[in-house]
Amino acid sequence: MGEEWPLGSRLGVVGGGQLGRMLAEAAAPLGVELIIVDPTPRSPASPLAREQIVAPFDDSDAIRQLAERCDVLTYEIELADPDLLEAVGEETDTPVHPSPETLRTIQDKLVQKRLLCMEGIPVPAFRKVDSVESLRSACEALGYPVMLKTRTGGYDGRGNVLVADPSEVEESFSAIGADALAERYVDFVREISVIGVKGDGERATYIAGENVHEDEILRETVVPARAPTAALERAERVAGQILDLMTGRGVYGIELFETRSGEILVNEVAPRPHNSGHWTIEGAVTSQFEQHVRAVCGGPLGATTLRNPIVVANLLADVNEPSEPRVSGIDAILAASHVSLHWYGKREARPLRKMGHITVFEPGGVHRDRLLEDARAYVDGVTFR
Amino acid sequence: MGEEWPLGSRLGVVGGGQLGRMLAEAAAPLGVELIIVDPTPRSPASPLAREQIVAPFDDSDAIRQLAERCDVLTYEIELADPDLLEAVGEETDTPVHPSPETLRTIQDKLVQKRLLCMEGIPVPAFRKVDSVESLRSACEALGYPVMLKTRTGGYDGRGNVLVADPSEVEESFSAIGADALAERYVDFVREISVIGVKGDGERATYIAGENVHEDEILRETVVPARAPTAALERAERVAGQILDLMTGRGVYGIELFETRSGEILVNEVAPRPHNSGHWTIEGAVTSQFEQHVRAVCGGPLGATTLRNPIVVANLLADVNEPSEPRVSGIDAILAASHVSLHWYGKREARPLRKMGHITVFEPGGVHRDRLLEDARAYVDGVTFR
Repeated sequence: MGEEWPLGSRLGVVGGGQLGRMLAEAAAPLGVELIIVDPTPRSPASPLAREQIVAPFDDSDAIRQLAERCDVLTYEIELADPDLLEAVGEETDTPVHPSPETLRTIQDKLVQKRLLCMEGIPVPAFRKVDSVESLRSACEALGYPVMLKTRTGGYDGRGNVLVADPSEVEESFSAIGADALAERYVDFVREISVIGVKGDGERATYIAGENVHEDEILRETVVPARAPTAALERAERVAGQILDLMTGRGVYGIELFETRSGEILVNEVAPRPHNSGHWTIEGAVTSQFEQHVRAVCGGPLGATTLRNPIVVANLLADVNEPSEPRVSGIDAILAASHVSLHWYGKREARPLRKMGHITVFEPGGVHRDRLLEDARAYVDGVTFR
Repeated sequence: MGEEWPLGSRLGVVGGGQLGRMLAEAAAPLGVELIIVDPTPRSPASPLAREQIVAPFDDSDAIRQLAERCDVLTYEIELADPDLLEAVGEETDTPVHPSPETLRTIQDKLVQKRLLCMEGIPVPAFRKVDSVESLRSACEALGYPVMLKTRTGGYDGRGNVLVADPSEVEESFSAIGADALAERYVDFVREISVIGVKGDGERATYIAGENVHEDEILRETVVPARAPTAALERAERVAGQILDLMTGRGVYGIELFETRSGEILVNEVAPRPHNSGHWTIEGAVTSQFEQHVRAVCGGPLGATTLRNPIVVANLLADVNEPSEPRVSGIDAILAASHVSLHWYGKREARPLRKMGHITVFEPGGVHRDRLLEDARAYVDGVTFR
């Protein structure tokens, strides 16, 4: 192929979940093919990938094979192994983006928070926790309630527990373990997220979205966030500072708290396309998935311009135990003139697992509250059995 | 899967070119996978399909295999064999959409024109041609110049020849052969096309686009067409009448002439997503590819609402002979803030072959002439070597 944009090149992706699937959808128009590594046969991304290597994310043979068959490596899950990616990348002379260094920093919430804090980026006050005693003194220093978090591997509220008062210290510590951090509980008005992208010598951010959580799981994202303009601007500025800190090219999902006093504090950073950025597929000129492909393959970034107000709502499996997905309520979604379906093709429904999402918008506008109301009604109509 | 929309179902597609590729991109979010039949190994659609069966379009074993592995059959190329599809469909109890009957009618331009004419749909005057004598008398009846067309298999101007005066009759007949039709040459102001879709008991049309041809190959589509509102409405009405005639579900590309007197005449109908409808990916709420999947799989149709004025331009290989595609000028396309790339992943460039397309739009508007100017500048910058 030509010497310019790598048409016909192959992107190796660690992880083949819905993020990998939507990456493959976005890579095709750019002339880029995916090969994925995922332990689950027929993973969501597999029908859209040139090939799936069925292996654990940290299988060194699989990652080496991936590197040998691909021009660039990336990951769509924080469980990717930065040391392995770094070693294989150097050994096979295959670029890895975002850099393994960035993944290593972000994977460990304590290291992540320390970096942000050192660089003057506002975060909730935190302390390292490695014993019951250190948790107790952290709680006293920070003031109850305190959010206790596992340093690595937590997601969707798993690995987090709220320590309400001194009587809960021991039990909380047993639940989370000795590799943890304690954070001052933030009494926020809104959770906001900004999708950012770092390219080759350039960076860009999307307008901030507002995240609605329930039981610590993201339910909906409303875009733009229903927040004062000053808060939106502050959020974008903080996101820009974070992008400047990161050494790797790619998309970042940046979760923020907007406090009652209008302050912006960083909750967490993910070095990959993010659930709260799915609105960009229909709602922005360039989707977060296309941006990630552009960035990791070394192309110029696309425009992040908002096309219209938009709401995304997750389709979570309301099942009590793992089962083959059987679902109703999808017909109503397809029949609605302003709702788009994104089904992930997961072969098993599990309690509260993300099975897909819907996007609600109308060209030219419509009030965000109304879009959110509609999104909820359609999601409420979906039932898994 | 559930009893509603066929999540997890498989769509068998005859043809694995760019239309199959874009069908696969659109099918994934709907939870539908593709299997394709195409004689070219690693055809454009193959990286996005669950599987490619490498075989000619009319290979009965391959079509039977396809039917056995899929829930619904369709085609993205008129070279599909309607008799074979009908037989295999019945034998394996697999629905075929649009119906083989429709494909049979449309494949033969004479049969197609006769049907339209019989139903009172305005077409250019035409005559059957099966001998030099019949061509000569057709030309006398219709008046020179006359467009002589092969009845089957012509595309992108191949299989068409203009008969300017009586001296050209014999040579033209030798060039096209005995299975032909002669049409009165239409002195049109604009070529317009309407993408229509027929679902289960419903139909819909998109706003008309304006097609700019050069050497009978589609170069650009400008949407909405720069035509008087009355002409646009007439075009949509004619398209609706055509949809009512067709017995099969699916998307139709309807090419029309707008004459100097404001009349609308039907040029050709294609029973599949159409090059002139690629603008719907970024420019409409539902793309023509998503519509086709919805329609052939029996789901409700999506909204055809225009999102903003938009121009599509084809990337044609400017090579003199078949070669491995080497291209420059793509970087400038990626760097432009209002241009989207769609690369088809063809493994061989051939003279004037469609290698991809670009879409130019800006949220909120911008004049169509300006968008067209920009599209041309970017396409002119692309060079194949």
